[in-house]
Amino acid sequence: MPSRSLKTITLVACLFSALCGVTHADDMIVEKKTFEMPSYTTQSGKTIKQVKVGWEAYGTLNADKSNAILVNHFFSGTSHAAGKYAASDKAPGYWDYLIGPGKAIDTNKYYVIASDTLVNLNTGDPRVVTTGPASINPDTGKPYAMSFPLVTIGDFVNVQKALVESLGIKKLHAVMGASMGGLQSYDWAANHPEMVERLVAVISAGEADPWLIAWVNVWAAPILVDPKWNGGDYYGKEPPLQGLTQALKIVSLQANHWLWAEKSFGRAWAEEGKDPNAAYGNKYKIEAALEAGSAARAAVSDANHFLYLVKANQTFATGNGANLDGLKKIKAKTLILYTPTDQVFPQDWVKSTIEALKSSGTSVESAEIIGNLGHLNGVVGLQALAPRIGEFLAK
Amino acid sequence: MPSRSLKTITLVACLFSALCGVTHADDMIVEKKTFEMPSYTTQSGKTIKQVKVGWEAYGTLNADKSNAILVNHFFSGTSHAAGKYAASDKAPGYWDYLIGPGKAIDTNKYYVIASDTLVNLNTGDPRVVTTGPASINPDTGKPYAMSFPLVTIGDFVNVQKALVESLGIKKLHAVMGASMGGLQSYDWAANHPEMVERLVAVISAGEADPWLIAWVNVWAAPILVDPKWNGGDYYGKEPPLQGLTQALKIVSLQANHWLWAEKSFGRAWAEEGKDPNAAYGNKYKIEAALEAGSAARAAVSDANHFLYLVKANQTFATGNGANLDGLKKIKAKTLILYTPTDQVFPQDWVKSTIEALKSSGTSVESAEIIGNLGHLNGVVGLQALAPRIGEFLAK
Repeated sequence: MPSRSLKTITLVACLFSALCGVTHADDMIVEKKTFEMPSYTTQSGKTIKQVKVGWEAYGTLNADKSNAILVNHFFSGTSHAAGKYAASDKAPGYWDYLIGPGKAIDTNKYYVIASDTLVNLNTGDPRVVTTGPASINPDTGKPYAMSFPLVTIGDFVNVQKALVESLGIKKLHAVMGASMGGLQSYDWAANHPEMVERLVAVISAGEADPWLIAWVNVWAAPILVDPKWNGGDYYGKEPPLQGLTQALKIVSLQANHWLWAEKSFGRAWAEEGKDPNAAYGNKYKIEAALEAGSAARAAVSDANHFLYLVKANQTFATGNGANLDGLKKIKAKTLILYTPTDQVFPQDWVKSTIEALKSSGTSVESAEIIGNLGHLNGVVGLQALAPRIGEFLAK
Repeated sequence: MPSRSLKTITLVACLFSALCGVTHADDMIVEKKTFEMPSYTTQSGKTIKQVKVGWEAYGTLNADKSNAILVNHFFSGTSHAAGKYAASDKAPGYWDYLIGPGKAIDTNKYYVIASDTLVNLNTGDPRVVTTGPASINPDTGKPYAMSFPLVTIGDFVNVQKALVESLGIKKLHAVMGASMGGLQSYDWAANHPEMVERLVAVISAGEADPWLIAWVNVWAAPILVDPKWNGGDYYGKEPPLQGLTQALKIVSLQANHWLWAEKSFGRAWAEEGKDPNAAYGNKYKIEAALEAGSAARAAVSDANHFLYLVKANQTFATGNGANLDGLKKIKAKTLILYTPTDQVFPQDWVKSTIEALKSSGTSVESAEIIGNLGHLNGVVGLQALAPRIGEFLAK
C-alpha cells in the first residue's frame, strides 16, 4: 500500500468511450453514418423491422475492396473507435492511439470500419444509432421496451455483415475488438470463416464462462431493484437512473483493478474535513468518483439496453457451439491479447481459448498486456503492443 | 473451461455460517449466552445504552485463566464458530473442523470464546444477540434505524474486551479470525498489545484498501436503490428484501472464485428446457443458485446492519493508524494465512501487511491457503493448514 498520489478521475470515465483518448493536432475528422435494413431476422427467428445502426470509417477502401478491417466495440462502447466528429470534440475515439495514418492500424493502408451494435447502451448520445428496446416498434408506434426480441452477439455480427456487404466488401483483412468487441470478433471468424482473414481478440474469451454469467447478472441487479425500471416500461416517464448509475458503477469497478484504486485514490476522503467515519453520508474519494462518473454516464444510457447487453454476453459461445467447439470453425490467423490482472475475462479462460484454438490447428499467437488497469488495459493500455498489432496485420 | 460437473449449491450458502460445516457424531453442544454493558462509548465518543452481544465458548477456562483464545467472525458470520446448539442442528459452526477436542484449536487445551459483533448482520437468527440499528433505542422506545451511532472495528474489539475482562481474563493466548474477523484480530493486537500473545489473521489485511472501500460500497448499492429501505426507516414495515438479496448476492460472488463457478455450475441452465436465450426470465443455474441462496439469507438479515458493517470495514485501519502505521503497535507472534485467489483481500495487500509487520520487528510467519473458492478458502478450506495452526498456537 505504497504511494497515495491523487490523480484525476479520467480513468473512471474511460469505459465511457468518448472520454478516454487524448487530443492530437492531426485528428482525423470522421462522419457518423447510418446503415438501415428493412428487416432483420434474429438467430432465434424473430423479425425486427427497420433496423438501423450507426457506423463510421477511417481511411480509404481500395479498388478491389480487400483492405477493410472491422473494429467491434465493447459493452459500453460505440462505433467511435478513432478520430473526432468535430475539431472541437474534447477527445477522439477510444482506440485513436492505435488507428490512424501511420499508426498500428494504419489508415494509409487500411479502410477501418466500426459500427454501433444492436441494443447499444448509449441511446442518449446523439451520435449513436441503434435499434433496441428504446426504439419505436413500427407495429405499435411505441417503444418496444422488454418486448424487443432477445439478441445475441451473433445477431450483432449478422447486422455488421449486412453493413460490410452493402459496401461491396467480400472479405475482411481483419476483424478485431476488445472485450465484447472480442466476442463479436470470435463469432465473425467462426460463423463467416470465408470472410475473415485475420482475427485480433483483445481481453476476451471464446465463451461466456459461468463466472462472467454471474457477474453480469450482478451488474444488472440494481436496475431490477429500482422501481422506476417498472418491468422496462419507463419510456416517457422517469427512467431508472439510480439503478442504472449503480449498475454502471459495478461495471467501472470490475473493469479496473486494485492497483488503479491504490494509485489513483488511496484512502483519501471525498471532501476535506468530512471524515467518512463521522457521518454515514461522508464518503471516500474513490466512492464519490465512481458515483459521479457513473451518474453522468447513466444520464445518456438506457437501462433496458443494458439488460439486453447483459443477456447477449451471458449467452455468448463462439459460433453458438458448446464447450468452445465453435472455435473449430475459425480459419483466420489469430492474435490474442490479454492481461493478467483482468477481472472480467480472467487470463485462465483466455488461455483455455488459446489452447482450444491451437488444438484445432488454428494459427494463434498471443501476448500479455501489462498495466495497472485490469480489464481496461485492453482499451486504454495497448501502446506497448501497437507494433505487435501492426506487424500481425501486415503478415 | 474443463469439466462441467454440477454440484450442490452448498458453497453459495457458505457465507451463511450455519450452513457450511459438516456433521460429526461427537458434536460439542454449546450454549449461547448474552453479555451486557449498561453503556458503551464508541471510539467517536457516542454513547450507546444497554449494549448486548451474544457469545459462546468451547473448552474449559483454566485456573489461572491463561488458556483463552478469542475467535472473531467474518462480515456475515456470527459467534457460532464451532459445535451445535442442539444435537438436531443440521450443521455445526463454521470452523468446527478446526475447533474441538484434539483439533487444531484444541478445546482440551484451550478455552475458545466467540462473540457476535455489534451491528451483526443476522438479526433474524434467534440465536444472534447484537446491538445496532435494528435495536430499540431506550431513549425513544423505537428502533434506532440510521440514528444508531457509526461503529468501527475498534468498537467491536472494545466490546469483546469488556466481555473477556468480565470473565476475569487478563491475557489472551491468541486472537484470531477470518476476513472481518482478521481485521478485529489486527485491531486487538495493536490496541491491546499487552493482552494478545498470538495473532492469527486469515484472509485479511492491516487496512481497508481503496479497492475494498469501493467494492463494499457496491455491495451496499442495491439496498440504497430499494425504495423499501426508505432511509433506513422500515421497522414495522416491509423491509428492503429485494435490495438486501442483491447485496448478499454480490458478497457471495466476490467471496468466491471462477474456479468454483466453473466446477460447480458450468453453463448449465437453471431449468431444463428453458434456454436462457429464449426468454429474458430464463436463467443459468449459477444465477438461480445465487438468487435463491441470497434471498434465503436476506430473510434473516437486516439491511441497516449491512450498511453499518460496510462502513466499519471501509474505515478500518489497524489501530486507527494511517498507511499501516498501526501495525507497529503489535507485539504478538503473528501467523498470517492468505489465498492467492482472494478477490476481497487480494494477496498483494496481505503481502504489504506482512512486510509492514516484519519491518517493525514483529515475529511473522505466513502460509498460502490452496483451493478453488477464492476468499472462502479462508473459511471452509483450512483443513490442510490445521496442523500449522495447531503448531503455531503451541509455540
